[in-house]
Amino acid sequence: MRDFLPSDVRKREYVIGIIKEVYESYGFEPLETPAVENIETLMGKYGEEGNQLIFKILKRGEKLSEELQSAGVSEFQSSPDSLNSPNSPNSLSDLALRYDLTVPLARVVANRKNDLPKFFKRYQIQPVWRADRPARGRFREFYQCDVDAIGSKSMTVEAELISAVSEILRRLEFAEPEFRVLLNHRKVLKGILDCSGISENQHVDALVIIDKIQKIGGAGVAKELLQSSIPTDASEKFRNFIFWLATESLKMPDDTPDSVNEFILKEIENFTSGHSDAAAGLNEIREILSLSKNGWAANQILVSPSLARGLSYYTGTITEIFAVTGDFKGSLGGGGRYDGLIGMFGKEQIPACGFSLGLERILVVMDERGMFPPEIAANTPADVMVTIWNEDSIGESLKLANELREQNLRVLLYPEPDKFGKQFKYASQLNIPWVCVLGESELAENKVTLKNMQTGEQKTILRNEVAASIQRTS
Amino acid sequence: MRDFLPSDVRKREYVIGIIKEVYESYGFEPLETPAVENIETLMGKYGEEGNQLIFKILKRGEKLSEELQSAGVSEFQSSPDSLNSPNSPNSLSDLALRYDLTVPLARVVANRKNDLPKFFKRYQIQPVWRADRPARGRFREFYQCDVDAIGSKSMTVEAELISAVSEILRRLEFAEPEFRVLLNHRKVLKGILDCSGISENQHVDALVIIDKIQKIGGAGVAKELLQSSIPTDASEKFRNFIFWLATESLKMPDDTPDSVNEFILKEIENFTSGHSDAAAGLNEIREILSLSKNGWAANQILVSPSLARGLSYYTGTITEIFAVTGDFKGSLGGGGRYDGLIGMFGKEQIPACGFSLGLERILVVMDERGMFPPEIAANTPADVMVTIWNEDSIGESLKLANELREQNLRVLLYPEPDKFGKQFKYASQLNIPWVCVLGESELAENKVTLKNMQTGEQKTILRNEVAASIQRTS
Repeated sequence: MRDFLPSDVRKREYVIGIIKEVYESYGFEPLETPAVENIETLMGKYGEEGNQLIFKILKRGEKLSEELQSAGVSEFQSSPDSLNSPNSPNSLSDLALRYDLTVPLARVVANRKNDLPKFFKRYQIQPVWRADRPARGRFREFYQCDVDAIGSKSMTVEAELISAVSEILRRLEFAEPEFRVLLNHRKVLKGILDCSGISENQHVDALVIIDKIQKIGGAGVAKELLQSSIPTDASEKFRNFIFWLATESLKMPDDTPDSVNEFILKEIENFTSGHSDAAAGLNEIREILSLSKNGWAANQILVSPSLARGLSYYTGTITEIFAVTGDFKGSLGGGGRYDGLIGMFGKEQIPACGFSLGLERILVVMDERGMFPPEIAANTPADVMVTIWNEDSIGESLKLANELREQNLRVLLYPEPDKFGKQFKYASQLNIPWVCVLGESELAENKVTLKNMQTGEQKTILRNEVAASIQRTS
Repeated sequence: MRDFLPSDVRKREYVIGIIKEVYESYGFEPLETPAVENIETLMGKYGEEGNQLIFKILKRGEKLSEELQSAGVSEFQSSPDSLNSPNSPNSLSDLALRYDLTVPLARVVANRKNDLPKFFKRYQIQPVWRADRPARGRFREFYQCDVDAIGSKSMTVEAELISAVSEILRRLEFAEPEFRVLLNHRKVLKGILDCSGISENQHVDALVIIDKIQKIGGAGVAKELLQSSIPTDASEKFRNFIFWLATESLKMPDDTPDSVNEFILKEIENFTSGHSDAAAGLNEIREILSLSKNGWAANQILVSPSLARGLSYYTGTITEIFAVTGDFKGSLGGGGRYDGLIGMFGKEQIPACGFSLGLERILVVMDERGMFPPEIAANTPADVMVTIWNEDSIGESLKLANELREQNLRVLLYPEPDKFGKQFKYASQLNIPWVCVLGESELAENKVTLKNMQTGEQKTILRNEVAASIQRTS
């Protein structure tokens, strides 16, 4: 897990600031949940692999002693999984660190329905923890940026989510051609799978394989499909259709996304003709495309029949931001509709749709491509530093620092008397653009020498002229 | 542990925003550390009681199996403390949740010295976790707001910390008479204890008792001193002097804090005459008072000889914000100088001084006293809501919402067609001040009806007049 030094925090806060500003302009409200959840809330929500990656908190005091006394070590040994199973009498753990922000949201919505509006639009930007083997770009503590709209099945929800996410990337200076919003629908996928002749109990297998297409390529997908238990004629029909669509759409580089999308939708319509779920899904996709004509996502959306997304709780639309920028090619986030998840925590099924932006990846790309504005990249704690000449002049330096702060400058006071050379060196190490020198002669004349650290120029001026001089040039 | 619903988050972020703005104006830089630390980093830093309150994370996978196999349960039973002792071979835990922000700071400063400036001024606002019994106003997850200056022994550090904290409270609308900065010095306390005849090995006992004076009153302190192992004549001399000073200073309500402070300092000087540590401490207090004459803390500082503060790592100045406001009477935070802590993590002793603001208490007081500005208290997700008339008009409503967002308004789109009555009710529940009605006639005329939700007034205007109408009145 990482420490974030000031330069890291400044970059994160810049990006998070824009994310918040955009989400709030769409009426999303901030929610925060505790880092620690009851272990039962998390267990069984993320599949077997997820269960293994949850950080579990040891019981405390008497409860821990009781567990250790009531169970023999042999019992723990013979069934190490009992530690992972919820409500196990042998469990050494009652709490756990949150694994994502979606399950805590579902818990809050189910438990605090009366404290929330019937349509609840929330964003949440907090760290999550996974006991994964750390690797380049993968951390055991990382931030998630989630935005979700609860309570409506309308496609305005999808259209606004896609628009907001596109606006965020554009405002972070990602150019329009650098990213696309891939759009698909679980019901459309179901139609394609059914009409390929793949039986329902093998749908998940097929989706898991096709979802890897960006990672393992077309040949890899073909190979894995052949190795799977799916009958070859069905898997071939499925693969051929998806691959053919992709190839055809690639042949249309000069066409607008609109006409490419229309081509893909028509072909899926033909392929799944008479399949009612597919027809419903296609209608929803068309509606999103139509509602997105005027927003930030206009010309950004690509209908992508091979997009499947791993999480099992999606029930309708699925989306992903795919970016090709600099050395980076991959996903910057994804989401979808999950109308069945909240019902797991309460009596009522409540429709929901969300998107999770990949903050850590966005930061890596922006860092590599130098996309931060100059004031963030400069990474300086202050607009100006004030020097200290000697013990007797500390009060005057402190007073000058206060005066400058009252004029809305960020002011660093060098903490103690020191050689001016050392004080300048310190300011320069911290990239502070201006230094106010209060030396012997300045103190005598009640003036100040203002030094531009970039050019080395300096001029002696009245104390009350300092702030204006700095503001004029920055 | 608590969920923070949008109204809670808005209040917290308002307060945190001001805290950050003020600290940054003094040149403090943001630092963030991970929630999870190695268990050895935390153990043994907070005393025996602290050790018990640390949330420990269970080892995972093979490492956990190994621990359970290598140890018999009887071993855990016979020495339950082995779970708490660092580096115990039997330990079931290798990681733990951070207990405060000071120890992680000391670790960062010791380990990453070369990545940090020689004077490092940092603030850090993050949650910490303590396995305490929850009670009113006490939580197992709570935010700490720490600010620390590393690397200098100069009293400018103390003066700026006190000034910044006072500025924060004033900008949060705490009035000048509602809080005082209590100031004392560990070396001065040492002098008073020595000159009372209390032997050095009983200093901690005496300080722990005198520190409770706000909680248990003078009679309580007197009783506990008599019950302690400190010889009665020494403890009486100590108590009499401290109590007499407090009583005398209370007799001077019309005097300026300056003259009260001068009286107290003089009397301590007499009492500890010839004690060199006390003299050094008194000099530092005088210097802070002198340096604070022009800043936000002018007239706020009270020298307080009974202030001791619990934490054992303080070595010099100690401070506390004491507030009396509404029903609240107590501490809003405290701090001090700890020149010996960082050396525990590295080879080098590095001087340091900090302050921790009690964010949770500040929020409680501000809530009870209605101190939040109207835009925060209103707790609304949007400046204006846009209605949806029917399925065919969704696109127009979405377009209007986008137009208004481009004019820097926060816009909530009602997500689906519905009776206008229901849409108005929803806007009113969310305290949204304006509603844009796009109904049948408005769509026909390409106009919009703008409804003021407070007065009920409505007028039909051109679409491009909406933003100006809203901005003019808010």
